[in-house]
Amino acid sequence: MDEYELTNQRENKAIARVIISFLKYEEYTLKEIYSLRVKKWESISERQKLLIPNYPKYLVSLKAAIQENGKFFKSVAEYAMQSINLASEEIVQPNNLDMSKTCSLLTQVYREWSAEAISERSCLHSRLVPFLKAEVPSEADILIPGCGTGRLLVDLGQMGYNCEGNEYSYHMLLVSQYLLNAGLNQNQTIVYPFIHCFSHWKRNEDQLSPIKIPDIAACSLSKGKGSMSICAGSFVDCYGRNQGTKISSHYTFSRRMQLSRAKAENSKDVVITNFFIDTGSNILDYLDTIVHVLKPGGIWCNFGPLLYHFENDHGVETTYEVNPYSGFQDKINDYTPLMGIELSSDDIIHIATNHLNFTLIQRESGITCGYGRYAGLESCAMPGYLCHFWILRWNPTNES
Amino acid sequence: MDEYELTNQRENKAIARVIISFLKYEEYTLKEIYSLRVKKWESISERQKLLIPNYPKYLVSLKAAIQENGKFFKSVAEYAMQSINLASEEIVQPNNLDMSKTCSLLTQVYREWSAEAISERSCLHSRLVPFLKAEVPSEADILIPGCGTGRLLVDLGQMGYNCEGNEYSYHMLLVSQYLLNAGLNQNQTIVYPFIHCFSHWKRNEDQLSPIKIPDIAACSLSKGKGSMSICAGSFVDCYGRNQGTKISSHYTFSRRMQLSRAKAENSKDVVITNFFIDTGSNILDYLDTIVHVLKPGGIWCNFGPLLYHFENDHGVETTYEVNPYSGFQDKINDYTPLMGIELSSDDIIHIATNHLNFTLIQRESGITCGYGRYAGLESCAMPGYLCHFWILRWNPTNES
Repeated sequence: MDEYELTNQRENKAIARVIISFLKYEEYTLKEIYSLRVKKWESISERQKLLIPNYPKYLVSLKAAIQENGKFFKSVAEYAMQSINLASEEIVQPNNLDMSKTCSLLTQVYREWSAEAISERSCLHSRLVPFLKAEVPSEADILIPGCGTGRLLVDLGQMGYNCEGNEYSYHMLLVSQYLLNAGLNQNQTIVYPFIHCFSHWKRNEDQLSPIKIPDIAACSLSKGKGSMSICAGSFVDCYGRNQGTKISSHYTFSRRMQLSRAKAENSKDVVITNFFIDTGSNILDYLDTIVHVLKPGGIWCNFGPLLYHFENDHGVETTYEVNPYSGFQDKINDYTPLMGIELSSDDIIHIATNHLNFTLIQRESGITCGYGRYAGLESCAMPGYLCHFWILRWNPTNES
Repeated sequence: MDEYELTNQRENKAIARVIISFLKYEEYTLKEIYSLRVKKWESISERQKLLIPNYPKYLVSLKAAIQENGKFFKSVAEYAMQSINLASEEIVQPNNLDMSKTCSLLTQVYREWSAEAISERSCLHSRLVPFLKAEVPSEADILIPGCGTGRLLVDLGQMGYNCEGNEYSYHMLLVSQYLLNAGLNQNQTIVYPFIHCFSHWKRNEDQLSPIKIPDIAACSLSKGKGSMSICAGSFVDCYGRNQGTKISSHYTFSRRMQLSRAKAENSKDVVITNFFIDTGSNILDYLDTIVHVLKPGGIWCNFGPLLYHFENDHGVETTYEVNPYSGFQDKINDYTPLMGIELSSDDIIHIATNHLNFTLIQRESGITCGYGRYAGLESCAMPGYLCHFWILRWNPTNES
């Protein structure tokens, strides 16, 4: 088996595991979310039961909502199974983390594909779109690492841009495949994205709100506009530098990825990082990669909080360099922590403008942006994140 | 050994464990927070190191801040050791959860005892104080379950009220003992409350901000005003009903607690729940307990989010009733989930006004309140919580 076959086999196994987590969503959620609450209700005294006479009815509605979400995930799984033969895969059963990722996809689908969440999407849109219209010609090449389920690709594709997404999570990738390609009509499906959050509600009915998706029929929309594709894998692995990056859990030395990275160099007019820049264990690798893919004069636009995903992760991994002449592993560090180098926004801007030849075009801080927040007026859910926005232009002829 | 001695022994053991977690704060934090970041810096390439030339200096400041916090915790531990002989205790070493609780005390101390966090405290104060002044006579008896490190007791004691706090966490209790009784001068000590958060910063210097505590010298202030005391234990166990509450992890059948609960009945003019009502595994037990301690005509004031602490806890416990005649365990339920019955704010108000003889006096929702947030203008930390506020009056002669 050569490198490509091995990679394919590994990918199919990972995909199979995600598909199974979709098929098990209903069973898992009924057991872990619904049944435990039924048992809790059964456990309280008769006197306390009289204080919450509507709770059994609420539980019935909760169950129905879980079943509806289960239908959605079953459709996604069935669509994915058209391109993968589960029977031929050595199935690894999903663990609790897989299942929890599946549950949180509902928030992502709501944010990207519902009319209700337009105010969340417009936090970026209202700042990005006027800039693109004024400064970036149609048919420019845009890369969106961490593209989630792909909505931003569609919106920018509609403006005529050639959009390439990149996504590491197969959970996201399978849902984006379904929403982008399965030919769904507008408002065809109902999901209940809020049922996994039991806190912060003013009214329990709000938690049980049904949301129609998708708000746009992506299939019919995209015809005749900019091209669109999504690349699966780690941003640094797929698009990073071929020299000077250490091998790690997110950067490999395979021939396939080396070719991918060589092709990516100087290939994009715009990179948009949207709720992405804080997701890696080494933000400097992200900065290097953005520089590597941009054409001279290219644009980096960032939006999102700086909620470093690994700041509390006490894990370590092995990293090392590869000697470009001998191909041998060099400077092996088998105790590289995942936490660390959590830069402030001033740090990032400083590095970009003082060391990486970027020029600052726009910057804004403290933008409150909801994140999967129920949009009803009566809601009292979390206020969301305080987000950073900046636009930088890369001009390698600048003196730094 | 009788019931009282057994309880004392158990308590001393728990206190000893917390004291040790204070003494180990510096060692733990240097190892788990600082050293990992040093290793991360060491692991990156020389080229990337040049991008962040100030990072080693930042790490030196981080280390110094950890050591200062270590001095604070050592002082708290030494004060606590005046009333407990560690040598005589069978020491249980603190685990990671104990250590993480110790770290988070810095946030609590900042919120309650710094001048910088006055805007966080005033979210409740600005609503509560005018009401108390207008409606509740001085020398009234106020109970504050979940009183943390006791600041609200001091503030209301200064108004002449007799304040009783109740707190379950020995971490909180030992710090309150120190801050209330050790005779600290205003601004005597410096802590670095933000160093455990590496996300959301606009400038890294802000993360390293020193904060002077306490902003008031509690010892000298409280003379000649209302009385003040703090009771250690679970709210429901110390103050709940003696009939109709199921035995659980937060409610025991000991003679000592039965007497405590009998004494608590109809004893308070005001109960203030401040960031507390969402902390238990059965909110109905909290509601029952509030009703049980209030005098007729008494006031329940609530402030805080509804962030149910157990909503994602898949654990279960055993609960049961005790037959009041035989003393035997009855209706044993050894599978009572900790999650469940996460009521919305409308639910709580409805239960209080329709089933528990409360009348609504004031209500406000969606109040944004910071939580240990750096108060500098340049900060971009989390916006905090959306909080609920209400004032209810209990009038048992009402027809429901």
